[in-house]
Amino acid sequence: MLLHTRIIWEKAWRIRVDTVQLPSGRTTERAAVEHPGSVVLVPLQEKDEEPYILTLRQYRFTLQQTIVELPAGTRDWDEPWLECAQRELREETGYRAADFIPLGHIWPAPGITDEEMAIFLATGLTADPLPADEDEELIVESILLSELVAMAMDGRLQDAKSVVAILRTAAYLNDQ
Amino acid sequence: MLLHTRIIWEKAWRIRVDTVQLPSGRTTERAAVEHPGSVVLVPLQEKDEEPYILTLRQYRFTLQQTIVELPAGTRDWDEPWLECAQRELREETGYRAADFIPLGHIWPAPGITDEEMAIFLATGLTADPLPADEDEELIVESILLSELVAMAMDGRLQDAKSVVAILRTAAYLNDQ
Repeated sequence: MLLHTRIIWEKAWRIRVDTVQLPSGRTTERAAVEHPGSVVLVPLQEKDEEPYILTLRQYRFTLQQTIVELPAGTRDWDEPWLECAQRELREETGYRAADFIPLGHIWPAPGITDEEMAIFLATGLTADPLPADEDEELIVESILLSELVAMAMDGRLQDAKSVVAILRTAAYLNDQ
Repeated sequence: MLLHTRIIWEKAWRIRVDTVQLPSGRTTERAAVEHPGSVVLVPLQEKDEEPYILTLRQYRFTLQQTIVELPAGTRDWDEPWLECAQRELREETGYRAADFIPLGHIWPAPGITDEEMAIFLATGLTADPLPADEDEELIVESILLSELVAMAMDGRLQDAKSVVAILRTAAYLNDQ
């Protein structure tokens, strides 16, 4: 039973603390990140008939290291998902896509946050950059899809959203 | 450049707010969840020579719904990973495992948290329950691995850690 709720921090996402009464009668606090959701992008390039994917090497201050991941970004609270996908793709890779093919949604961390991520395969890329966020440090790198699948399976790709998006992309393209 | 840091909430995990100066000179705040890490468990049962996996239907207050996911749990700050895996398996499913086979680590949400999840395939199950956490509501359900793989690929399984752990398990068992 929820006794009290308050927001203790807010920027692109909010941190909420609830005071709840458990079935035993004991009162406890729990925190949650309220999140507007985000997009995960799988930008597809064909080279010599082989599919390549644009990935990022991005510094993550949470982890204090640079990791390999797919382009992704937080939605503004009222932003349509496809507008967010097009904006983030242009900001992070410098390309726009002709088509965004939905590959499902995931919850990255339901123990902490209500964040939902919408995965899109982005095809028909043409150069059309937007300025990047000033607090992001990233380098774009094109990697063979088959290599990314191997990295997703053997653990070299540790970013969960990227593992899911790469494996769903490989399955989708196999079915075409 | 980090100007100031403070903890604004703390329980099994902590919320930290940093004040930082960007390369442009502008000052901004960013929040992060400091997390001790967690385990993701893939408890394997064989029935009629077919592999089944113990899954949970668990109510997540963040999402305000019951979702299908694998057993998982937060590590105590100083707890060895394998002890955490054995404890969470017994608490959440009522079984202990003879063997824990490591299937890599993932970062569920590096934009929010430093949480690292260690995935283990748990085999040789025997009944040996521990009391569950009093704030968890869950039901154990055994599902055919091949069905879980289909759910991971077509989007019915939305919990990211579970998608990754199921697909790595299928690949591992295929290689045996």
